[in-house]
Amino acid sequence: MNQDKLTQILSRVANGSLSAEDAKNQLKHISFENIDFAQIDHHRSLRKGFPEVIFGQGKTSSQIIGIMGKMIINEDIILVTRLKKEKAQKITSMFQEAEYFKDAKLLWLKKKEPKITGTGKILVISAGTSDIPVAREAFLTAQAMGNKVESIFDVGVAGIHRLFAFQEQIMTAAVIIVVAGMEGALPSVVAGMVKAPVIAVPTSIGYGSSFKGMAALLGMLNSCSSNIAVVNIDNGFGAGYMASSINHVSAP
Amino acid sequence: MNQDKLTQILSRVANGSLSAEDAKNQLKHISFENIDFAQIDHHRSLRKGFPEVIFGQGKTSSQIIGIMGKMIINEDIILVTRLKKEKAQKITSMFQEAEYFKDAKLLWLKKKEPKITGTGKILVISAGTSDIPVAREAFLTAQAMGNKVESIFDVGVAGIHRLFAFQEQIMTAAVIIVVAGMEGALPSVVAGMVKAPVIAVPTSIGYGSSFKGMAALLGMLNSCSSNIAVVNIDNGFGAGYMASSINHVSAP
Amino acid sequence: MNQDKLTQILSRVANGSLSAEDAKNQLKHISFENIDFAQIDHHRSLRKGFPEVIFGQGKTSSQIIGIMGKMIINEDIILVTRLKKEKAQKITSMFQEAEYFKDAKLLWLKKKEPKITGTGKILVISAGTSDIPVAREAFLTAQAMGNKVESIFDVGVAGIHRLFAFQEQIMTAAVIIVVAGMEGALPSVVAGMVKAPVIAVPTSIGYGSSFKGMAALLGMLNSCSSNIAVVNIDNGFGAGYMASSINHVSAP
Amino acid sequence: MNQDKLTQILSRVANGSLSAEDAKNQLKHISFENIDFAQIDHHRSLRKGFPEVIFGQGKTSSQIIGIMGKMIINEDIILVTRLKKEKAQKITSMFQEAEYFKDAKLLWLKKKEPKITGTGKILVISAGTSDIPVAREAFLTAQAMGNKVESIFDVGVAGIHRLFAFQEQIMTAAVIIVVAGMEGALPSVVAGMVKAPVIAVPTSIGYGSSFKGMAALLGMLNSCSSNIAVVNIDNGFGAGYMASSINHVSAP
Amino acid sequence: MNQDKLTQILSRVANGSLSAEDAKNQLKHISFENIDFAQIDHHRSLRKGFPEVIFGQGKTSSQIIGIMGKMIINEDIILVTRLKKEKAQKITSMFQEAEYFKDAKLLWLKKKEPKITGTGKILVISAGTSDIPVAREAFLTAQAMGNKVESIFDVGVAGIHRLFAFQEQIMTAAVIIVVAGMEGALPSVVAGMVKAPVIAVPTSIGYGSSFKGMAALLGMLNSCSSNIAVVNIDNGFGAGYMASSINHVSAP
Amino acid sequence: MNQDKLTQILSRVANGSLSAEDAKNQLKHISFENIDFAQIDHHRSLRKGFPEVIFGQGKTSSQIIGIMGKMIINEDIILVTRLKKEKAQKITSMFQEAEYFKDAKLLWLKKKEPKITGTGKILVISAGTSDIPVAREAFLTAQAMGNKVESIFDVGVAGIHRLFAFQEQIMTAAVIIVVAGMEGALPSVVAGMVKAPVIAVPTSIGYGSSFKGMAALLGMLNSCSSNIAVVNIDNGFGAGYMASSINHVSAP
Amino acid sequence: MNQDKLTQILSRVANGSLSAEDAKNQLKHISFENIDFAQIDHHRSLRKGFPEVIFGQGKTSSQIIGIMGKMIINEDIILVTRLKKEKAQKITSMFQEAEYFKDAKLLWLKKKEPKITGTGKILVISAGTSDIPVAREAFLTAQAMGNKVESIFDVGVAGIHRLFAFQEQIMTAAVIIVVAGMEGALPSVVAGMVKAPVIAVPTSIGYGSSFKGMAALLGMLNSCSSNIAVVNIDNGFGAGYMASSINHVSAP
Amino acid sequence: MNQDKLTQILSRVANGSLSAEDAKNQLKHISFENIDFAQIDHHRSLRKGFPEVIFGQGKTSSQIIGIMGKMIINEDIILVTRLKKEKAQKITSMFQEAEYFKDAKLLWLKKKEPKITGTGKILVISAGTSDIPVAREAFLTAQAMGNKVESIFDVGVAGIHRLFAFQEQIMTAAVIIVVAGMEGALPSVVAGMVKAPVIAVPTSIGYGSSFKGMAALLGMLNSCSSNIAVVNIDNGFGAGYMASSINHVSAP
Repeated sequence: MNQDKLTQILSRVANGSLSAEDAKNQLKHISFENIDFAQIDHHRSLRKGFPEVIFGQGKTSSQIIGIMGKMIINEDIILVTRLKKEKAQKITSMFQEAEYFKDAKLLWLKKKEPKITGTGKILVISAGTSDIPVAREAFLTAQAMGNKVESIFDVGVAGIHRLFAFQEQIMTAAVIIVVAGMEGALPSVVAGMVKAPVIAVPTSIGYGSSFKGMAALLGMLNSCSSNIAVVNIDNGFGAGYMASSINHVSAP
Repeated sequence: MNQDKLTQILSRVANGSLSAEDAKNQLKHISFENIDFAQIDHHRSLRKGFPEVIFGQGKTSSQIIGIMGKMIINEDIILVTRLKKEKAQKITSMFQEAEYFKDAKLLWLKKKEPKITGTGKILVISAGTSDIPVAREAFLTAQAMGNKVESIFDVGVAGIHRLFAFQEQIMTAAVIIVVAGMEGALPSVVAGMVKAPVIAVPTSIGYGSSFKGMAALLGMLNSCSSNIAVVNIDNGFGAGYMASSINHVSAP
Repeated sequence: MNQDKLTQILSRVANGSLSAEDAKNQLKHISFENIDFAQIDHHRSLRKGFPEVIFGQGKTSSQIIGIMGKMIINEDIILVTRLKKEKAQKITSMFQEAEYFKDAKLLWLKKKEPKITGTGKILVISAGTSDIPVAREAFLTAQAMGNKVESIFDVGVAGIHRLFAFQEQIMTAAVIIVVAGMEGALPSVVAGMVKAPVIAVPTSIGYGSSFKGMAALLGMLNSCSSNIAVVNIDNGFGAGYMASSINHVSAP
Repeated sequence: MNQDKLTQILSRVANGSLSAEDAKNQLKHISFENIDFAQIDHHRSLRKGFPEVIFGQGKTSSQIIGIMGKMIINEDIILVTRLKKEKAQKITSMFQEAEYFKDAKLLWLKKKEPKITGTGKILVISAGTSDIPVAREAFLTAQAMGNKVESIFDVGVAGIHRLFAFQEQIMTAAVIIVVAGMEGALPSVVAGMVKAPVIAVPTSIGYGSSFKGMAALLGMLNSCSSNIAVVNIDNGFGAGYMASSINHVSAP
Repeated sequence: MNQDKLTQILSRVANGSLSAEDAKNQLKHISFENIDFAQIDHHRSLRKGFPEVIFGQGKTSSQIIGIMGKMIINEDIILVTRLKKEKAQKITSMFQEAEYFKDAKLLWLKKKEPKITGTGKILVISAGTSDIPVAREAFLTAQAMGNKVESIFDVGVAGIHRLFAFQEQIMTAAVIIVVAGMEGALPSVVAGMVKAPVIAVPTSIGYGSSFKGMAALLGMLNSCSSNIAVVNIDNGFGAGYMASSINHVSAP
Repeated sequence: MNQDKLTQILSRVANGSLSAEDAKNQLKHISFENIDFAQIDHHRSLRKGFPEVIFGQGKTSSQIIGIMGKMIINEDIILVTRLKKEKAQKITSMFQEAEYFKDAKLLWLKKKEPKITGTGKILVISAGTSDIPVAREAFLTAQAMGNKVESIFDVGVAGIHRLFAFQEQIMTAAVIIVVAGMEGALPSVVAGMVKAPVIAVPTSIGYGSSFKGMAALLGMLNSCSSNIAVVNIDNGFGAGYMASSINHVSAP
Repeated sequence: MNQDKLTQILSRVANGSLSAEDAKNQLKHISFENIDFAQIDHHRSLRKGFPEVIFGQGKTSSQIIGIMGKMIINEDIILVTRLKKEKAQKITSMFQEAEYFKDAKLLWLKKKEPKITGTGKILVISAGTSDIPVAREAFLTAQAMGNKVESIFDVGVAGIHRLFAFQEQIMTAAVIIVVAGMEGALPSVVAGMVKAPVIAVPTSIGYGSSFKGMAALLGMLNSCSSNIAVVNIDNGFGAGYMASSINHVSAP
Repeated sequence: MNQDKLTQILSRVANGSLSAEDAKNQLKHISFENIDFAQIDHHRSLRKGFPEVIFGQGKTSSQIIGIMGKMIINEDIILVTRLKKEKAQKITSMFQEAEYFKDAKLLWLKKKEPKITGTGKILVISAGTSDIPVAREAFLTAQAMGNKVESIFDVGVAGIHRLFAFQEQIMTAAVIIVVAGMEGALPSVVAGMVKAPVIAVPTSIGYGSSFKGMAALLGMLNSCSSNIAVVNIDNGFGAGYMASSINHVSAP
């Protein structure tokens, strides 16, 4: 249940167009709703400014459809992450207005376009071509949460002049997400260039002693730059969410 | 060299009270200065809004004094982190206006009190009494960088009602830093309560399979809350710096 | 061989309805029985109150059927864990009264319904929807061993009010099993609320630095709550067994 | 604040010997008390049946004395764990009735001897002589919490007949704590002999690839016995607490 | 080239039935033979008492056939380990007297039955049914190398009376191989019972924190028994080879 | 863009056969070219003496074809590494002069044969037959970069006389690449024999506690020989590239 | 209690020079003796051919003296390992015939010189000078257990000709112990030269990624030679014990 | 024994000024010399172009003095690494011409200044002030081995413009050593700028999840630049040695 809807119900009670009893019925699920295999947190929109996001991995498509069916009543947007193509097809055949992004393995269902409420611009930078899927997950998440988002792909440190060519675009971002695998050095370099906060996202791209992203993760945690914080390996969604949260710090 | 000083020099050239030649001399160190064992990054204040911070660990007190002597000419504030008491005493006997915080192992030298330039309030929460030194390092760093900062100590998840008693103070923070050792569960719980961004700081408090903070670090990276990002183990300084960076996203 | 059966044999010898020689033949396999690829521990029911449980993983369906055929002579219930659907089908076509639970990958074969012998109620709580299979394995194991069992699913710490809504149910449990992946924070919070013993079960749910359950495992081992002990990652069976063992501490 | 004290206050209000106003004053700290560096959880006795335990490691002796001074008003017993001898001496010179156990690094302060409220007997077994300090911490904790406790030391698996010689004592325990370093095999063997729940405590005794208790910890988590759960390395306190919790499952 | 063959050639030169020139031709490959993708170590039989063993994993069936074709000229027995069924079928269709053991994934090709040259009896013990394949690899290797070998399967420590029932067979072995997964406790218990050397073989049987045999490996390396040494995880072949090497220490 | 081409353009401008405007057009992509999913680093040939190499893993065949199409305009050779057979087939059907090496999973497209510009001979040694694919990747990379390259396969330390038989070939190499899995001991032995620099390449060949090449990697990093440096596990490409870089240190 | 003593007692009973009652008194401690902090395993000499060895680390000197005082009654030799100099001095002042070896941190107390009962010669080889303390512990242990022992120190693989100079001494050993730190390559090379069994002992000598012996341990476990097995890091004692056990396989 | 000395002896035999018998005596130690605790490898100068280097860690000062006394007879330079100040003082009081470098913990003893024999210039770059000791060890080693060496300190990636200011010095180096702790990103950036080979040296500088240099090591191994290879953590000596080896590839 989002804030608009709550305000609307309360106003209608105030002006008499809705009885207290009916309002109570509409509000009773505000807290959360038990649908056997899940406790849907309807209160999350009010508390956190964005509805609960469905983590697709490890859920069946029918479980996801069940949760979406309950959520869509009160929410303007639903996000499903880490969703394989096969499951996505079952969901889009049920909710035909849902849109699936194959590269990001992300699906959204929107009643209306999210308003841009974030203060500045979020910029998503990826070190390599293979890091693009994670970067796209961050991009779409931040966009869904009401932010202006831009991206620059494939500007890794082995040819660092490519990065500096985008210097102006980088300097004007309010929040920067940097996605990198292998040695994960890019966030340090970017953070050294700007005063904006940098969210570093290690990816599992690499082989051998990259240990599925461990090398990149450790590199980012030990950055010698200080305006930087790190999310889990391949967690593009978390990076987008955190960036949006930062970009709304002074939003009304 | 901070922005005020740069503006002042340029204005004096503009109004004729400073010759171009003299200005050039004053500006020549803007980029960086080579003092043999260090390349002091005088440009950092301009680029990042805060001068280079001296990482005290692994430097001798004479090296630190040498760097401070060069920096103090152009900067309004100097921060030294991870500084043992013995070294601090040598430094404060040289720079008598310097202030040393034993709990946080942090020293600062201020020409004038930093102006509050951050948008909102930064709140530092620690899970246990033993986590306080790291929390204090975060607190003082954020304060030095021009932020209003508050703190709540010892509200770990084993008695979670203590946390909820501070709910209002928590809900009104613009940015929250959560410091925790052992299982590192507190940031998840706090992040679940608010829409503000949360910086999670694992500490090395614990024993056995805490592996000097590894357990807390992994816990925080795998948080089921999404408005959260993580810094290195015991990195109170980085958390304070990142929080300030976030709190200045929409600062003029 | 369970205690009832032993008592019965000995009584019949006592009252003359069974010759000593025949009793000896019936009892000779009490210790264990060598069927080439396995030494079936018939003595376990007497010693531990529950017959040997068949660990399905890494055994062929014919090996399992062979072991079950020997056990069913003397035991009232047989449990097979970590059993894939394909193997289960071969087994249920042989033992048609066997029941297979696909979610928990557990099969049981019961001569009669187990009596409720445990003192109190065992409660199984899971943090997320994806943790349900492990939670179900714990649930069914505890049930098979003669306990009253209840469950609450999907009450993770990111929306902690969902947990508190079940406070009464939680406070009245004799033993609590808490199943969680990712950061594994839920057991600490639950254990902080109650005086009952809590069995924490880390799951392999997560990605990246969850390292297949390692993050959750470490989190639980380092819990700042004290009425808590931990079993192996995804070991729902062990948790159910341990909970039943606890719930029978003062059983006659 | 323990239950007896609460009952007493409420009775006095009921019979008029205490005014509501005075009762309120006495009760106001029930929840928790903020003494700057700590939030003392006075509510814990009511909620968990035992007052908050002070984790001595990483606290100064004055911090510990401060907390003890507040707690002693309402509690019958105070436990301090992981307390070095030097700190203990400062504390016992302040609270002269406090008793310090050097081997277990544990201190207690008792107003009166704890009543035996646990259902059965708790047995603490250690594999080697070097594991005794951890075993003693478990022993004393369980004793402080109102249990009958016994111990057997130095019965490791390299001479397993020593273990079997204590078979009867082992079979009659309600709960068993098994403390072992090195390969940590003893809990599996003990758990295979009994139906009682076994708490396994890995210790950091060993060298080389024992990795400070990691080998023992992993061994215990992967036990082929099922009536077993594990606590953190060297966590004798946690084992004693958990064992007491189990031993009180059916306590009134 | 084995010792018999070498003696025979040299004798024939001595008695004039072979010219020096012809002998030289027959001997020239004694050292090793380069067949492009492999340097076959023909000298190994002389040096080590057993010909080079072909590690099947990562070699194509044609590579294996090529090596076997060269070796069979001079050797009485050829062993191929870690050989999948599909490759084995190609090999046995080429060398029809070759024998493949599916459970052990081992193939041998014998010109004649190996003589029993080892001093005593080698005993292979496995903890669980799932450890049998590794145990079988050890069994067959030791047999191929000229030893009397026996085996006992499924006598894990959770029901330790099963082990003691075989005490006499265990006490009379010259060398013992103990194969175990999960916590890997069995070798410690067995080694504590005997004075014979024990070769411990960890297996990858287990799940979760067994980390594919790591837990068992660490357990065995940290054994509190001393007549024990360890080989790599799942290395049944190495265990059989080492046991044979030990069993031939005083062989003529 | 390679140096020859640049010289040619500039000469033509100098002698008037190319207008400045046309030259500018041809040169404008020297820095790098943005083709949406990649920033092709055309400057790399000039800066590093060899064009950007395409890392095939994690790129689609159309992405690779797209990049190749842009690069082939200015470069004499294109290398694609870690390329699966299926993708390679799509590429060779598009660029028919491209050559694919199945064992090394490497493809190259050459306008003309690379000139031998390296000073001495590069020698690639592999410890086992299974290490050949990695050794071949190193071999072909070094060859593509203008070096004379030789190889010796299957000379592991278990039969060290095989290695010494190649002593002369080893002593005359300018740079040596040693490829080994399992315990990774070969590079230490080779480096002890020569004064030439040795590049050590650990491979993921092995099982159990080889941890996919970790054991070999650690062995090589801790070599007691000193003329040795290490690349990532299975990184034959990097070894060939580094060896070529070394072999060109004094190239004109 | 050793076998000689047992035989003597029984003979005296047989020939009437000792009453059954007196014999019983002398034998009653055969099993084990409980001295509060230790269960001394008097039966070990009979079962394993050598009395219990005292692990000095983590025991106080008075505990060690207590155990020695009980053991010396029945045993001909007592070994104490991992004994620091300070503790050793207290012990030797109590048992003046005890001999302490500072390099090996080992103490022994002998009633009479051990007879050479082992079949062949045990050879201890160390890779570096820094590995000597561990090698010496192995040497002395094997000597104490009745073996002929020789040693060669400092023949690491970086100058492998040093090793080959000792070839004859190496070829004639019945059992070989190879002690090495850093990359731990020496055991593979030695095992490749001989048919005798090789006990590999990793040491913690090294730095950085040697991870206190982990690199050497992994190297040895993954050896491409097969007549090899491994003991714990720095476990010279275990290697000497195992070697003696092997060297007695065919001892009467 | 170095090459000059060998040539001189052989020439004197050739021209009759030295008898064959005397020459033999002088040459007999060429191979190696057994001084009980060490086998001094006199042959190393001939084989590797530089005499054996003494690893100071874990050797007593008398052992070091003993080895130096033997070596100084035939060698022109002796290097001792990882030497603590206390030991160095004992050595310099014995060999007064020896020179000790406290920052690098390195000592050398030179009969004459080493000739510059390396082809080009070796450049040592360090990321931070705290990395200087390791950088100095590399610097001095390379210098001792006959190379022209330069250094640049404190040019880490957080202020990357400092690095670019030294671009010309960097572009003209034949071999580059890059020393960095924390995230270890600097070698990737430097290697991306040049075609020269880069030796990357991780240091243990950092805290928390730097895991004593592990983060830097992994970062360097996973570099996206290719003209790079890595040595052990803090191994400045190895880096200097390898760089010299590379710089002599085409030396006469």
